[in-house]
Amino acid sequence: MMAFTALPDALFAAPEMWEIWSGEASVRAMLDFEAALAHAEAGAQVIPAEAAEAIAAACHSEQLDVAAVFREATVAGTPAIPLVRLLGERVAASAQAYIHWGATSQDAIDTALVLQMRAGLALLADGLCDLAAACAELAERYRATPMVGRTLLQQAAPITFGLKAARWLALATRQLQHLGQLRARIAVVQLGGAAGTLAALGPAGLEVTERLAGELGLAVPELPWHTERDRVAEVAAGLGVVAGAMAKIAEDIVLLAQTEIAEVSESASAGKGTSSAMPHKRNPIDAVMARAAARLAIGVVPVLLGAMAQEHERAAGAWQAEWAALPSLFCYTSAAVDRVRAAVGGLQVHPDRMEENLTRSGGLVFSEALALALAPHLGRDEAQRLVRAIADRAAVSETDFQQAALADERVRAVLPEDAAARVFEPAGYLGSTDAYIDRALAAFRALDTKRGSHERHRRRRANRRH
Amino acid sequence: MMAFTALPDALFAAPEMWEIWSGEASVRAMLDFEAALAHAEAGAQVIPAEAAEAIAAACHSEQLDVAAVFREATVAGTPAIPLVRLLGERVAASAQAYIHWGATSQDAIDTALVLQMRAGLALLADGLCDLAAACAELAERYRATPMVGRTLLQQAAPITFGLKAARWLALATRQLQHLGQLRARIAVVQLGGAAGTLAALGPAGLEVTERLAGELGLAVPELPWHTERDRVAEVAAGLGVVAGAMAKIAEDIVLLAQTEIAEVSESASAGKGTSSAMPHKRNPIDAVMARAAARLAIGVVPVLLGAMAQEHERAAGAWQAEWAALPSLFCYTSAAVDRVRAAVGGLQVHPDRMEENLTRSGGLVFSEALALALAPHLGRDEAQRLVRAIADRAAVSETDFQQAALADERVRAVLPEDAAARVFEPAGYLGSTDAYIDRALAAFRALDTKRGSHERHRRRRANRRH
Amino acid sequence: MMAFTALPDALFAAPEMWEIWSGEASVRAMLDFEAALAHAEAGAQVIPAEAAEAIAAACHSEQLDVAAVFREATVAGTPAIPLVRLLGERVAASAQAYIHWGATSQDAIDTALVLQMRAGLALLADGLCDLAAACAELAERYRATPMVGRTLLQQAAPITFGLKAARWLALATRQLQHLGQLRARIAVVQLGGAAGTLAALGPAGLEVTERLAGELGLAVPELPWHTERDRVAEVAAGLGVVAGAMAKIAEDIVLLAQTEIAEVSESASAGKGTSSAMPHKRNPIDAVMARAAARLAIGVVPVLLGAMAQEHERAAGAWQAEWAALPSLFCYTSAAVDRVRAAVGGLQVHPDRMEENLTRSGGLVFSEALALALAPHLGRDEAQRLVRAIADRAAVSETDFQQAALADERVRAVLPEDAAARVFEPAGYLGSTDAYIDRALAAFRALDTKRGSHERHRRRRANRRH
Amino acid sequence: MMAFTALPDALFAAPEMWEIWSGEASVRAMLDFEAALAHAEAGAQVIPAEAAEAIAAACHSEQLDVAAVFREATVAGTPAIPLVRLLGERVAASAQAYIHWGATSQDAIDTALVLQMRAGLALLADGLCDLAAACAELAERYRATPMVGRTLLQQAAPITFGLKAARWLALATRQLQHLGQLRARIAVVQLGGAAGTLAALGPAGLEVTERLAGELGLAVPELPWHTERDRVAEVAAGLGVVAGAMAKIAEDIVLLAQTEIAEVSESASAGKGTSSAMPHKRNPIDAVMARAAARLAIGVVPVLLGAMAQEHERAAGAWQAEWAALPSLFCYTSAAVDRVRAAVGGLQVHPDRMEENLTRSGGLVFSEALALALAPHLGRDEAQRLVRAIADRAAVSETDFQQAALADERVRAVLPEDAAARVFEPAGYLGSTDAYIDRALAAFRALDTKRGSHERHRRRRANRRH
Repeated sequence: MMAFTALPDALFAAPEMWEIWSGEASVRAMLDFEAALAHAEAGAQVIPAEAAEAIAAACHSEQLDVAAVFREATVAGTPAIPLVRLLGERVAASAQAYIHWGATSQDAIDTALVLQMRAGLALLADGLCDLAAACAELAERYRATPMVGRTLLQQAAPITFGLKAARWLALATRQLQHLGQLRARIAVVQLGGAAGTLAALGPAGLEVTERLAGELGLAVPELPWHTERDRVAEVAAGLGVVAGAMAKIAEDIVLLAQTEIAEVSESASAGKGTSSAMPHKRNPIDAVMARAAARLAIGVVPVLLGAMAQEHERAAGAWQAEWAALPSLFCYTSAAVDRVRAAVGGLQVHPDRMEENLTRSGGLVFSEALALALAPHLGRDEAQRLVRAIADRAAVSETDFQQAALADERVRAVLPEDAAARVFEPAGYLGSTDAYIDRALAAFRALDTKRGSHERHRRRRANRRH
Repeated sequence: MMAFTALPDALFAAPEMWEIWSGEASVRAMLDFEAALAHAEAGAQVIPAEAAEAIAAACHSEQLDVAAVFREATVAGTPAIPLVRLLGERVAASAQAYIHWGATSQDAIDTALVLQMRAGLALLADGLCDLAAACAELAERYRATPMVGRTLLQQAAPITFGLKAARWLALATRQLQHLGQLRARIAVVQLGGAAGTLAALGPAGLEVTERLAGELGLAVPELPWHTERDRVAEVAAGLGVVAGAMAKIAEDIVLLAQTEIAEVSESASAGKGTSSAMPHKRNPIDAVMARAAARLAIGVVPVLLGAMAQEHERAAGAWQAEWAALPSLFCYTSAAVDRVRAAVGGLQVHPDRMEENLTRSGGLVFSEALALALAPHLGRDEAQRLVRAIADRAAVSETDFQQAALADERVRAVLPEDAAARVFEPAGYLGSTDAYIDRALAAFRALDTKRGSHERHRRRRANRRH
Repeated sequence: MMAFTALPDALFAAPEMWEIWSGEASVRAMLDFEAALAHAEAGAQVIPAEAAEAIAAACHSEQLDVAAVFREATVAGTPAIPLVRLLGERVAASAQAYIHWGATSQDAIDTALVLQMRAGLALLADGLCDLAAACAELAERYRATPMVGRTLLQQAAPITFGLKAARWLALATRQLQHLGQLRARIAVVQLGGAAGTLAALGPAGLEVTERLAGELGLAVPELPWHTERDRVAEVAAGLGVVAGAMAKIAEDIVLLAQTEIAEVSESASAGKGTSSAMPHKRNPIDAVMARAAARLAIGVVPVLLGAMAQEHERAAGAWQAEWAALPSLFCYTSAAVDRVRAAVGGLQVHPDRMEENLTRSGGLVFSEALALALAPHLGRDEAQRLVRAIADRAAVSETDFQQAALADERVRAVLPEDAAARVFEPAGYLGSTDAYIDRALAAFRALDTKRGSHERHRRRRANRRH
Repeated sequence: MMAFTALPDALFAAPEMWEIWSGEASVRAMLDFEAALAHAEAGAQVIPAEAAEAIAAACHSEQLDVAAVFREATVAGTPAIPLVRLLGERVAASAQAYIHWGATSQDAIDTALVLQMRAGLALLADGLCDLAAACAELAERYRATPMVGRTLLQQAAPITFGLKAARWLALATRQLQHLGQLRARIAVVQLGGAAGTLAALGPAGLEVTERLAGELGLAVPELPWHTERDRVAEVAAGLGVVAGAMAKIAEDIVLLAQTEIAEVSESASAGKGTSSAMPHKRNPIDAVMARAAARLAIGVVPVLLGAMAQEHERAAGAWQAEWAALPSLFCYTSAAVDRVRAAVGGLQVHPDRMEENLTRSGGLVFSEALALALAPHLGRDEAQRLVRAIADRAAVSETDFQQAALADERVRAVLPEDAAARVFEPAGYLGSTDAYIDRALAAFRALDTKRGSHERHRRRRANRRH
């Protein structure tokens, strides 16, 4: 329901998402409901066919006065009441009585919401799919590019940049999968009438509901859900997880782009990420804005979970809060996805810096490798104690850990020289990295293929409907 | 990781859930990981079989000093380090080197977490299933018991109490379904070693992972997920939705139990819901405490979503926050489910008060029925205008709306007397109520049947393992 | 920074608050900063006086292209960079070099933010003051109007409606007080330059800061606060408390307006709170929308608290999140205050219904009074047991508690008939009600008087500046 | 009300804070209320003096059965009812009737809560004061130690480590100030009786309240505040700000301790921050755990803000949620403060690494300095363009920016050689750093002095009472 101005919103919403949740689009979706309802009721012989035609025609003609709808909504407490009133002004008297027949405001608003959520989820899935594809490319290209793995922001042990990208890929792929299931689960019509019994439709209630759902490409729920908002809450929760996933990737990028680490940078373009005071700066703006948007998105989730406590057959506040919360959540999440997609898609990777950082600890990142090589000979604890002693000695004497280790008598006593040297080669200490990358790629490709056919199917159906 | 005392926690956790997340249980789950890892590594010929036997035996013997584990954890920054140390003290020197071989602290902690989440989800599902069964019984028994439907806390139009219970039932059934899917999705092992490459296991990484997963009845993920926490976040989000669902049902009960409405009351038992100052009071304590617990649960969700932004290969704070957040979330949610189950299971329903409240508006709740009966004759707008005029007139003259309507000349002009009278009978204005109740019951029964066989299977497997 | 469209926003923002946070107003506030900075630097002889005049003139002339500022901001990562660039286009080459001299983007954005927060807090205080005045009027008028007090939504014991209004009054008064202190505390200038040292201003840093603060009517902080955001967070927290306070009052109104209780209703106006399906309904729309807005506001608070963890000398995401979070928070809170003000200001109170509800329990709400009257004779426990026994007996036999009590032999044995009868008179059981109302009124009047003079002072200063 | 076990809680609570909120301490605080109430009522001649003595004696004797109190609370819905019952068992029959006279459960629970909050706030203030003192020491000692300032995690321009510590100091000082004001504002008694009128005390209500407040060292509020929870919410909000402040400092420490930056490290002690897999690691455990605790604390704040919407005269769920939320919030916040205090108190600062990092950009961090030196000659835009061109050229040719700048013809044309060289000296580009440090120190010392005398006063009063 809520929308942002055409201006500053661009900082916190993908433009297409903004469009889906604009006041105009909200009114259009409610009109889609009213037109489909009229058709469904005519099909079930609840209202005259001519009335349905007249109503549908009015719904599909040029836009209503959106400003008036929302202005009156502040007094009426719902946009559906002024919408039905304005629609009535455009329909011949004979058909007027049949507008919105048997429905309640919430039926129109909720079904519109479902249509908008469905579109919003599809848009997010498109973005995530592009992001996953970009991650997949990085995973392949940098599959064997060594870099240091960091735990608690301390250098730990070698990985490859391809493995990091594969982890991002798996994360994005799982979100893509999840959004697909979510979209299927929530795409249900709302039609219950004043108190959720569809009393005004007499015995025709279910038939009208089924026809209405068919018209809009939605499923029929077990029963109306005016105050059982788990579907809305699940969408909110799902978007929160997507936003959190974007924050993880953005966090990695911001950290890797630090001047002192400099292993990646965002693509440079005119004016991007510059500073008003410091002409030399190249800020990772996409990742920065993704982190901001993700925080904002996650903040909305508990509002929608808390809003599940809805009174009786229609809520007095909690439902209305959804009108602002859901659009905000979709917009913020879309900004996070878009910005991460841009950051990853244009990522400049610096293998030389990765190598440099990997060696700057003087071999300390191979201390686990050394401890493991020593453990069969010395016992795990003794091996770790020895390695820590060598590390401490190196630190105090400001010498290289690798040299200190290779020179240590107890090490030499149990490890032959070449075996000891191999301990310090990253390529020899990558374990299952290759297999992991393959598995992440395979999971994405399986989904992408399946999604491809689904998407074609979805677009065909969408085309048929318009 | 965190746990509550044996005392006040009972206000905000189901006892069985408290048990799952106690310090003792956390240590036991980590020991289960260490034992299974040793077995898996022996199976893959990474460590000697005798060492594995010795380690597993130490893991399954009497409990470690739990207090010491957590006391040292405040300094070490993780409970896995003292746990491995203490375990080492119980194992012969020859086996000691092979404890926790190739693993990192987070592997033990995360896999333990998954085992605890799996148990917690199963417990919540059991509770939801009982709740749904109680709702189903109410839906059947009060299928035709009329009551007033209320929108924005105003009397709106008739429904039946069975329909309200059927909506609760559908809500609980969907949660049950959702938790089942969630449990399947998140039950994966964590094993990545220091930087997530399993380097220390050389080429045997995947085989060990598969064997470990098999030992624990878990699935193998695409790759380690030390800092990709979407599975944890999905659990958090799913529990938040469950908590919100409980809050909806509890809200309805609290509102229906109001002195002035009095359509339901919670079962009375000695001392339950009394007041220190007002001896006559019977407070709906279960619903009240459910609402409290649901608020608390929902508050934890954004903490876990926000904690997804984890740095590099191991997080510096966000992961650690999960240790307190997840147990709290499971405990609060369990309290909400338990309390709602108790409230619904023992609910006393007062059909006489429902009838009384239905009639006290003097027939105003049938104003939609009247407007719809008039609309074909007068047009929708005109019909509504007339109904509102009659209502206003009745309000001003403090007479009964029903009488005023039946006496109104314009009404009499278009509606025969018996048709007008039928407008004011609740049973004649329930629309699809019956069908909705049937649909909700059918959905639950289908799931319950399926779940029944799954549950038997699950218990068989659980028995086999112990 | 963010703003809503002119349309749907009206549901979730007071129009004046929307204006304060619009894109236009944000740009204007940044220009105010740039003009004041130029003046301050000229005063401190850091830049030429003519340059300052030229810059200030350009800042005060017609509006910049707001759309361009925010469009470029999505690439630049901050609106200050395009703003300075566009401003430069309007200034003679000789002055151009001195625009934004020594400042960093965040100096302009943060100081603008402070100016907007100051205006926003003043607007909220105005609204709260009106609300408090309306509460004060209700407290006086209904000082002695008895109604039932309700605990856990159960009838408990008598109060007066004036006491309830006095509690609302005290709540609003404390918020007013709190916002005043907050505004004083946060109205500080931001000026630190690139890394927070004001290095570019050499030794003139503090003098320029003091002059800049003087120009804008702000205070000088101990030192720049680019990444120490406690002042912003305190504003967020304070607004969250205000929103929660509004939710409390709105909750009371919605509950009292229930059909079955009907002790208050919102003022009726054309189209207000009607229903598309149910012509008889009068929904408490202002309270409903206030509850929605309060939920939304509270959801933003943890975003701003969480955003305090800002990196080094300028944050990479957390700061940027404020740009959307703060305007949303101010808008939502303003909607909550405005709606509650409207609801309370126009509240229709129904003393007859209050009396009716007070008596409908058959005297049960006087059970504490009876227990207390009996306690000196029977002991506290015995008295409560007796009262509960009478209540149970009355419930079983469906008779009146009052009659049952007056007829009870043990009661008659210790209480003379007239003393027993007085137990059931509300006016005799109001304790300190009158004194409480007086105290709440006095606290508000003291603040209102003080505020009155402050406000006059504030407006005088504001006038002087323009 | 809620408390943690003695074991894992230590990860997320300062032990002294855990003690303040333990079940035992909660019961003790409620008994303090009951004893003080009895004294107050005897003083106001509402109950016999001997009864008061007997009650007070029972309250101050050995502890009640805390387990029983909370076990019964799950059924009664409040711990005050079993507490009063158990207390009654210890008092002679003649005094029994006067226990809890005229009060309601919430009076005891809320006043106990206020006493616990007051103690909790004092403990946090002590911690913050120690932290501020540690920051002050760093600010002085490293006042002139140059390091690079970083914006968006990119090297920006020079600062000193003393300035960073001074910003932390100012942040902690403001929190200290704020907590002091908060403690004064919320330390009010709760006494309203069943429906908040103190009806049971007849005309003696205010006198008893004043005496009760005097006994407990609390102030008297305008009127009872059973469902106006702004004071509780303000405490929650204030603690959220403190937690956010701790997160900021911890974030800086974690980032500065990164292997690649290594400008600070936490104090080393046996076993602290080691790794099970990587023997060389020294993790900044205190800062890491502080970040975890701060996230957890902030998550609780909206629960308490949302819980302000309390129904009528006693809430049905929102109030009860406070019983778990407030103790959690105090515990989490105390852990954050304690961990940051430990981290800062033992911080090892590495000026050599600061210098090394400052120079590693080849002088790029002086690009603003250069641009500003050039601006008067070339104009601001032209100067920035030139600096950026030099930077780009240096990047491409992989040479030093400083050398490239000093060699640039246009630079040489306007800047004499020595002036150009001075541009690259950090000590010459620190602006108001010294003055800022002085101001932050002065603010802390002023508060510390004032606090010192307050504290002495507080301890004297506390001693007098026991």
